Formats: sequence, C-alpha cells, structure tokens
Amino acid sequence: MKKSLLPVLSIFTAAVLFGITGCKPKNAGNAAEGDAASKVYVAPGKYDELYNFVSGGFSGQVSVYGLPSGRLLRVIPVFSTDPESGYGYSENTKPMLNTSHGMIPWDDQHHLDLSQTNGEVDGRWIFANGNNTPRIARIDLKTFRTAEILEIPNSAGNHSSPFITENTEYVVAGTRFSVPMDNEDKDVPISSYKKNFKGTVSFISVDPQSGNMKIAFQLMLPGIDFDLSHAGKGPSHGWFFFSCYNSEQAHTLLEVNASQRDKDFIMAVNWKKAEEYIRQGKGKKQTVKYAHNVYSDSTHTATSTIETETLVLDAKDLPGIVYMIPCPKSPHGCDVDPSGEYIVGSGKLAALIPVFSFQKIQKAIADKNFDGDYQGLPVIKYEAALHGEVKKPGLGPLHTEFDGKGNGYTTMFISSEIVKWSLKDLKVLDRHATYYSPGHLMIPGGDSKKPYGKYLVAYNKITKDRYLPTGPELAQSAQLFDISGDKMKLLSDYPSIGEPHYAQAIPASIVSKNSVKIFDITKNANPFVALGEKNSKVVRNGNRVDVYMTMIRSHLSPDNIEGVKVGDEVYFHLTNLEQDWDVPHGFAIKGANNAELLVMPGETQTLKWVPTEVNVYPFYCTDFCSALHQEMQGYIRISAKGSNVPISFSLGKNSVDPTTMDSAKSK
Amino acid sequence: MKKSLLPVLSIFTAAVLFGITGCKPKNAGNAAEGDAASKVYVAPGKYDELYNFVSGGFSGQVSVYGLPSGRLLRVIPVFSTDPESGYGYSENTKPMLNTSHGMIPWDDQHHLDLSQTNGEVDGRWIFANGNNTPRIARIDLKTFRTAEILEIPNSAGNHSSPFITENTEYVVAGTRFSVPMDNEDKDVPISSYKKNFKGTVSFISVDPQSGNMKIAFQLMLPGIDFDLSHAGKGPSHGWFFFSCYNSEQAHTLLEVNASQRDKDFIMAVNWKKAEEYIRQGKGKKQTVKYAHNVYSDSTHTATSTIETETLVLDAKDLPGIVYMIPCPKSPHGCDVDPSGEYIVGSGKLAALIPVFSFQKIQKAIADKNFDGDYQGLPVIKYEAALHGEVKKPGLGPLHTEFDGKGNGYTTMFISSEIVKWSLKDLKVLDRHATYYSPGHLMIPGGDSKKPYGKYLVAYNKITKDRYLPTGPELAQSAQLFDISGDKMKLLSDYPSIGEPHYAQAIPASIVSKNSVKIFDITKNANPFVALGEKNSKVVRNGNRVDVYMTMIRSHLSPDNIEGVKVGDEVYFHLTNLEQDWDVPHGFAIKGANNAELLVMPGETQTLKWVPTEVNVYPFYCTDFCSALHQEMQGYIRISAKGSNVPISFSLGKNSVDPTTMDSAKSK
Repeated sequence: MKKSLLPVLSIFTAAVLFGITGCKPKNAGNAAEGDAASKVYVAPGKYDELYNFVSGGFSGQVSVYGLPSGRLLRVIPVFSTDPESGYGYSENTKPMLNTSHGMIPWDDQHHLDLSQTNGEVDGRWIFANGNNTPRIARIDLKTFRTAEILEIPNSAGNHSSPFITENTEYVVAGTRFSVPMDNEDKDVPISSYKKNFKGTVSFISVDPQSGNMKIAFQLMLPGIDFDLSHAGKGPSHGWFFFSCYNSEQAHTLLEVNASQRDKDFIMAVNWKKAEEYIRQGKGKKQTVKYAHNVYSDSTHTATSTIETETLVLDAKDLPGIVYMIPCPKSPHGCDVDPSGEYIVGSGKLAALIPVFSFQKIQKAIADKNFDGDYQGLPVIKYEAALHGEVKKPGLGPLHTEFDGKGNGYTTMFISSEIVKWSLKDLKVLDRHATYYSPGHLMIPGGDSKKPYGKYLVAYNKITKDRYLPTGPELAQSAQLFDISGDKMKLLSDYPSIGEPHYAQAIPASIVSKNSVKIFDITKNANPFVALGEKNSKVVRNGNRVDVYMTMIRSHLSPDNIEGVKVGDEVYFHLTNLEQDWDVPHGFAIKGANNAELLVMPGETQTLKWVPTEVNVYPFYCTDFCSALHQEMQGYIRISAKGSNVPISFSLGKNSVDPTTMDSAKSK
Repeated sequence: MKKSLLPVLSIFTAAVLFGITGCKPKNAGNAAEGDAASKVYVAPGKYDELYNFVSGGFSGQVSVYGLPSGRLLRVIPVFSTDPESGYGYSENTKPMLNTSHGMIPWDDQHHLDLSQTNGEVDGRWIFANGNNTPRIARIDLKTFRTAEILEIPNSAGNHSSPFITENTEYVVAGTRFSVPMDNEDKDVPISSYKKNFKGTVSFISVDPQSGNMKIAFQLMLPGIDFDLSHAGKGPSHGWFFFSCYNSEQAHTLLEVNASQRDKDFIMAVNWKKAEEYIRQGKGKKQTVKYAHNVYSDSTHTATSTIETETLVLDAKDLPGIVYMIPCPKSPHGCDVDPSGEYIVGSGKLAALIPVFSFQKIQKAIADKNFDGDYQGLPVIKYEAALHGEVKKPGLGPLHTEFDGKGNGYTTMFISSEIVKWSLKDLKVLDRHATYYSPGHLMIPGGDSKKPYGKYLVAYNKITKDRYLPTGPELAQSAQLFDISGDKMKLLSDYPSIGEPHYAQAIPASIVSKNSVKIFDITKNANPFVALGEKNSKVVRNGNRVDVYMTMIRSHLSPDNIEGVKVGDEVYFHLTNLEQDWDVPHGFAIKGANNAELLVMPGETQTLKWVPTEVNVYPFYCTDFCSALHQEMQGYIRISAKGSNVPISFSLGKNSVDPTTMDSAKSK
C-alpha cells in the first residue's frame, strides 16, 4: 500500500487553519452585486419563481423555500416528529416512523432527489434519505406530505442516497458504514472489519404510476465507505456512479487512517447487467427484517408492514456489474453532467478535480485496460477513464452541479468559494467567495439533463457572523447567486432550518398546478370518520371509548362528554367537515400526553388518551379558524375507575343547575 | 339577562361570509408602496435592525425573525420536542417537558412578553405561555434557550398569559377555561358549571437577578373565560387588566351561548391591594401539584421538581382587589397605551372600540359609581370608566398596539384590515387591507412605555393564495408595514412557522451584545463531563454502562467500544471539547430510539440507549464540522446478554486481523 502521509497532514493542517475555523476569505467584501434587492424581492401577492426543497440534515425534515425570495414556505416532516403538523404524534402518522428497531422519532436527513421523466424533473415526487436508520422516503408533491418510507436492510449510514435514474426506474442507496450483514454472525470484534464488515448498494424500484417503492436488489460489496452517487443519463443511462472512501478499510480514527491512500474510487455500476443476472436467477434471497410504511390519503392513516426478504447479488462473483475507477483522495461528491458523458469526482483532500469520460470508461472496460483488482473488483486505469483534470480549482472540492451551458460549478469547503469551470477544456472561468465553507450547492435541475441555469445556491456549513447572533446555536446559511451571466453575482444570504445538506429546485408551475387544496370528504375512507355532525357520537366497548367528533366553524360536536373513566383507552377521532381551502382545525385536550392534533379539511385524525386522574378536562380548537374560534371548546368529564356515570354526549344542551342561579346576578 | 341574539347572528353571518372565507378586500391591489424592496433587503453580511420573537401557536415553539428582512433566524424550542436542536430528546432536556400529567411533548404556545425595566424592554428574557397544559416559560436571551418552565395549578387554557408588569415584578396567567378547582371534588357534572367551575388569575413573581419564577398568589374568580391581559404602567402601575368573555357561563355551543349578552367585562385587578391582604395573612394555602423545571447552563441539565403548595385569595371576599368594567361583546384584546392612562378593550363582535380611562376608573371606584355586582365583584358603570369609543373602526376588532406618537393600531379580523386611530380624539386616521384576517399585530415595544414606532407586523390567520401552494397545509402569513409616516405602507409578506399568534420585537443591539457564543468548558459542571480526551472512558456498573465520550474535529473518543450487551442501559455522555464559535458536533447511533444529540462547544449532553439486538452499530457526527467530518465515526459492538466480552474502548488502535490481509489486494 502506497502511503503518503505528508500531503494528507499538510492539507489537513490547511483545513484546520482555514476552512474549519471559517476564517474570512480575503475578498470579504460583503456587498451584493448589481440591483440585488429588486432581484430577490417578491412583492406581496406575487409568487416565487421556483420551489427549493432543502434537506434538514440532523433535523430529519425537508424544508421548502421560495426562490429567489429565500422565504421558508413549509417544513415537510419526514423522519422526525413535528409539532407544527402533528406528524408522529397522531395515531394516524405514528406508523410512518416505525422501523425494525421500533419507533425512531428523529433521524438525520441528507439528500433529496426529484423524480424525473426522460432525465428532466417532473414534479411528481421528491425522495429523501434517512441516514442513521437507513431509509428512503417518498414525498408526494400533490400534498407536500411524506407518502411512503422504506427501510433498507444490510445497511448502515445510508448516505449515498436517494439518487435516481432518468425515468425514476430506481432510487439507489449505499452504505456509508460497512457493517456485518444482517443474516450473518454479528457478534464479531470490530478489529475483524476486513473479514466481517461489508458494504452494499441497494436499487429500489419505483412504480411509475403509484410511486410505491420496493427493494429490487442489493449488491454485496467490499467493506468500505460509500459516500455519494449519481445516475448516468443519456448515453450512460443504465449505469450508476458512487464515490467511495476508506479503501484503507480503517475502523478507527478515520481522519488519519482513512486518508492514507493517494486514491480511493469512483465505483461504476452497470445496473442493466445486474438486471440480466437476476433474470438468470443469479440473485440470492435473504431473510432480513425491515419496515415499509405507507400513508393513505383515503383512510388518512399510515400502515407499517415488516418485510422479510431481500435479493442479493455478490458483485465479485458476477463479472460486468461493478468497476472501480481510481479517484484522488477521499472523493465526496460524484456528479454526472447533463450530457451524461462526464463524471466528476471531488476528492475532498485533493488539489485538483478529475473529470472522467463515460466513453473512455466503456472503452477501457472493452479493452480490459485494468490495473489489477480491488477485492475482486476490476480497477480501471486512472488515465484510461480520465477526460482530464481541473487544475488548481481551490482547496477542498466537495460537490459539482451544472448550468446546462457547458459549465460545472464546484464548492470548495476549505478555501470557502465556488469555482466555475468549463466541461470542455476544464479551465477555471470564475470563482466567488462564500461565507463560510460551502457543502453542497444547487442549481435548479442541476443534476438532471436540463438545468435551469439562472440561480445557484450555496449551502454553507459555517455561519458565525452572517446574521444577528442567537446564542451558541446558529441557523445555517444559504447564499443565492445569479449565474445567468459570465460571472457569478451574489444576491442574498438567507438562514436555513436544520443543516441544509443537499437541495433540489424546480420551476413552480410544474408543481403548483397539481397542489391539493382540501381532501374530498365524500372520499374519506377512515373507519372512524363522522360524515356530518349527526353522526358524531361516543361509543364504549369494554374499556375502549371511541369519540367520533366533528369540527366546523365554530364548534366541536359533541362538546360535552361524560361517562369516561380513569384508565379507559379514549380515542378522539376528529373529522374536519370543512371543504374550503385553508380552513384547518386543531384539537388540544388538557392532561393528554399526545396533547394535540391538526386536521385538514375533509380529513380524520385520531388522538389516543388514557386519562389518569378524575377531573373535568377542557378541549378546544388550536388553529384560529373564525371570529368565534375562541368559543370553539368543550369539556370531557373523567370519573373514577369504578364510577357508574353512564356515557353521554351532547352539543348545545346548555343545562343550568338551578341551585346556582342565585349567585349569577345578571345586570 | 338582556339577550340580543339578532345582532350576534348577523355579525356572525358577516364573519362567515367575509372574514372566515377570507374573501379579498375590494382594495386588493397587491403592489407594495414606495421602494419596498430596498427597505426590506438586508445585504449579505449586514444585520437586521430588530429581533422579532413570534409565538408558534399550535407548534408550541417560539421563532425568531430578523426585521425588516423577515428572515427566520432560529426556532427556539419551548413546549414541544424539537428535532432541530435535540430539545426533549436528550436526557438533559427531557425534564423541561415534565408536568403534573407526566411528559407532554407538544403544547400550544400563544403569547410572548419581553422582560421590562421601567416599562421599557430590557432584552434579558422573554416569557411564553403554554396554553393547553397551563405553563409559563422563561427564555434566556443570552443563550436563546428555554431556561425555566413553571406549571400553573388551578388553571385550564392558560390564555391571558404571560403578560408582565413594568419592572417584571410579575408575570400573570389567567384561565381561559373555568374548571373545578384542584383541591375540590372534580367528578362533577358539566351541567353544574355555575356551581362548581371557577376561574383564576395567577401572579408569578420573577426574581430580579436570576429571573426565577414562583407562584406568588392566585385570585379565585367566577367561572367565566379570561382571554387576554396587560399590565398598567406609569400612573396605572399596580393594576392589571384582563378581558373576560362567556359571562353567560355557558358550557356548550359557546359560539351561540356565550354571545348572548351585549357586554362582557374588562376585569381590573389591584395587585398591590392583593399584596396588602397577603401581608395581613388573608391568603389561603392550598395543596396542589405542579411541575417546576429549570435548566442549568452549568450542569447542562434540567431538573423537574413537583411543587405542592399555592396561595389563594378569594376575590369576592376581599374588597378592593377586583372590579369589573362592562365591555361590548366578547372582548378579546385588552391593551394599555404607553402612558398607562388608556385601556382598550376589543370586543370581537362589537362595531366600536371602547377606550377606558384609568383616572376615570379610579374616580368611579372612589365614588362607588357601580352598577351592582357580578358574582360578588363590583361592576363599574360603563360610562363612568369610558374615555370614549372609536366609532365605525371596521368589523371584528381583536388587538391594539401603539406607536408612542399618540396613535393606536387595531386589527380587524372580519373586515381584514388594520385601522389607525388617535388616542386623543378617537378619530380613525388610516386603514390598510391585510391578506387575510389578522389576529395579533405587533409594533416593536408596542405594549411597553416606549414603542419603537417604525414598523408594524400583522400576523394573519388565513393565508390561502399569498404564497406558492404547499398542499392542504399552508404556512401562515405575516405582513410588514412601514408606519413611520402618516399613512401605513405595506412593505412585504413573509410566511411564518406554526401559528404566529402574538409577537414581540426589540432593537437588536439590546440583545446581541449579551449573546453567548460558547460554553466555557472549564465551568462545565456536568457529572459526566470528560474534560479532555484522556478522560474519555467506558464504565460498567451492573447493567448500566456510562460512555464518557469527547468530540473534537474530527474524531470521537473512544471510537471503538466492545463489551456492551443486549439489555444494558447505555448512557452516551458526549462532551464537545471545542471552544470556538459555531463548531457544534452532533451524534447519532443506529438502532437507538433517542437516535441523535446535538452538542454545543463546551457542553455535555446525554443519550440513553437500551440495545435490543446483537450487532456492531456505527455512530457518527451529524453536524458537518470540518473537511474530515465524514471521517468522524466509530463503532460499538453489542454482544448477547450472557456474553463474556469484556468492556474495552479505544481510539486509533487500527488493529488488523491477519487472516483477512490476503483479500485486501492493494494497488
């Protein structure tokens, strides 16, 4: 093994001195260029031009910004509970967060990819990865809600995910951490990493009509770390490219031990070849355990199913599926240009950016122009695959997107800048400072065949002094650039929710025309719906009490309930009878641990409560709905366990206790 | 009881037809006035002029915006769990959400009030109410974190809260819902409302140095609904004013039954008189149960204590504390002008706005100019207390703030506008449409003695078509106005998190100078801190395993752990050793249900995990911290319950299993 500790350490020192401590680039003039104010201002009543979907990183959610304004339009809960919407609190949504480990109320969400048709974003769905508990979510852009979550077996640290093929045939997912496989002996020493730890990449098929996901197959791979990936497109459709680091197979102090080799790899996967092997019966079925959660807009309820089978192909035994391409120093981003010909590997510790050619890769494979193998997988010669190198681009290249006009834009984490370069001759054309240390960048459609090359957003990892301080925890910072001209122009800074890891953007018109405004109540198939106030009721069955309650401006029905006892399992099924846009109602009840619900027009949602104390508890609408919203309240009496108070419920029977009339001296 | 059902119903019909359905005001020209773009644009690297703290309504959190940009700088978790910060997930923060009902992970947060000194905002703390489970929180503006939460006994629907006196002597809280009191028989029929249900207002003292809260006393009051409140100031310091509705004492279908009387009340409370009675020993101690939660920035841990005593004064038995002032139709807002002389009651079903005079109220009390009593509480004659009425202001007045230049600004929910009027002659001076149906409005310092009368923000209840659609759930909408001239000018629309219920704003310089950037690690008093990597360790004690782990760019120590078994209670105590601004680290471990942590520089946070399956689990840093962040990972081996694998832990011992060397064919 060729070691080169010195360059690693020196670049690492540079990282410590510059990028990491976020020192200001020299050219730290803050002024935005040109008439930036008017370019980002969206006047009252006007709409933003683009939806910008931004992953939440450690928050586990996805946020939706308008561009160019940078206004936060919505947080879509995906992998974490969300007190803004009730996701993960209601009985209906809890199953969405179920996994083979039980309910996980908080995950780490890194990347997003919009569904594509013919390599162009189509606005149907956006996919999101769960990084810690390996999962992929599908968000339905008709409702801006998480429609499906699929757990991935044989995986850990699902980082190179959820990138898709040009017709959304597959969403892929790769292990960042190699681990013992699910169906093998897992009680093994960590020091047996090289023997017992393996990596996988998974291909998940997407039903073209429903969008439903299914694990098609998993490739068994050496125990290294897979970082990022992108699909081939056009001529390279049928191939998928993954960046890999830790080819040293270190299991401790990776900052030193996984930075030893001059080159790690870009892994090229021929998934059409894998499909062939499957047709030939070469896949092996494995018994594993993973959750598959689906939300229904008809029953307004999620179901979680534990699946038990996966299909595995061992890459080293099935020639022609996987080839390794050497790539300088711990590649991070792995990006494919709009033409499908160029594959850019960004070695985060490298001082250049290699650009590989799909045609040359194909030729090298045909010519068997290999440089040995890596754990049984053929290694293509670096020079044979290379289109060329972008020289002296800056320090710490991480990610590249494309403007569709022949240019790549790469973020430089350590030197804190974005560098624009030409795909054709690999010359650097422009560079612009960012504040500070950009991770991903995003051009709308910039990882598709048809980028919308007007804007670029840098998602910076360090914020420091960019906004008013908010104590030790700061919002992270995004920066919007105009890239319509030869030179990048900084338009604005805007803070962001969670860690804005990766992002996607799409012209608004493609999505907004399909947006659902209400749920049709006549199609509400929830078993506990009350279709109209006359059907509201309270039903006891043993110690289970079902409250079928309706909401309409400005009362809940029933609003007086008695006969419920300490220890009963009470299910409040709330149906919002409204059929108008933007008339949600909320529900809160004192003393309940799942204290609240939000219910959209035409929807039914359920709150479970086991009362523990005798009392009369108020409940009320929590979403200001009308001039008489404050009157939208009621009471439930909880009696002692052995009480004989019968179940009763009513609305509008304002009975007066005659014994107390005297004290109510009215004027 | 004088009934006037007809006007109520007709105004209710108007509400249904106009305000509620959010029809566009006729003057629906959307264009912002003047050079709005440049007035709201904050160039990259420049700071906003003001912090705007906005309550989250049903989300239970508080969000911080910059003004005039409308950019969301931070969400501060208060009454709900928060996957952006780890609040409510870590062992350290879980106690903050404890109540007498157990842990409540989601509450409804309605109002905010900044601490004041001499009637001016001082930037030390901001108080927030928990509406469903009655609580008051204190947020420390040095850290932008929730420092304390106090539950309120004898309360339900803590709505008229947390308004404060001019030197932050007290924070008050009133019951929106009357209920049976905590120390009485609570298993009573709802129909016995008039006999058994009571209201309270609570005065919570605030320690001038530490800010610590304590229930000073509670006033026992008739069973009606208390809505909002504000303190007297200047000449009226010593008094507190509350709006009350449902003086009909209805307990069902309140939209009809609590809208019967022509007038409800503004309740004036002489709290200095109450203090006198307490000194005379007239308060009665009651045994109750409520949680008091305090977060320490030294131990980085919250404690929750269950308190058991409160002091109650029965208002009807102690003359001179409480007077009732008739106020037209279900008053909502109750606002006191900067001089302390004028009290504005906004009857949400009234067609005028009454303005009361403190001097006249005092004279009426001295003269006993009463109109009988309401349940034992003297009722001051309407005309005797009245300064005058703002005539024909619009439909559905809700809330009023002041510009310090002699003007009030009132939101009109039903006619969807803001109306500016003169305090002196009560003439309407200007009106401006809002989109749609504004609830609260906010002028920075607008409920203090010294408003900063440059901007006004309307927090609208209905959004509909103001932004790009996001499915059935829409962000709510705020609108920023320039009020520096005679006429209000609309500058911008910006969407907001949760339900922007009420808000406060303060010039940034008052707060930002005190902002904490890091926690001094030499003052870290957490019992599980590891002060330096050499102190990191793993300790078993029975089936409890404590992992003292450190984080520094770019490794966790230890990063290889063995000897932990299925069923062990594993506590990961993470100490972030960094002492630089904006270098948080995160921690996630696969398979854990409290899956993540975020740890600020100098801080220690704890994640509890009971592993249920044999495996080698990876863990990693979740907050992108350096060029080698992706290398900041480790493994923990979980063995079977009866296993003999001894506890071991290490960092950097990259042992290689010789049996697997052959397969690692290196190039």
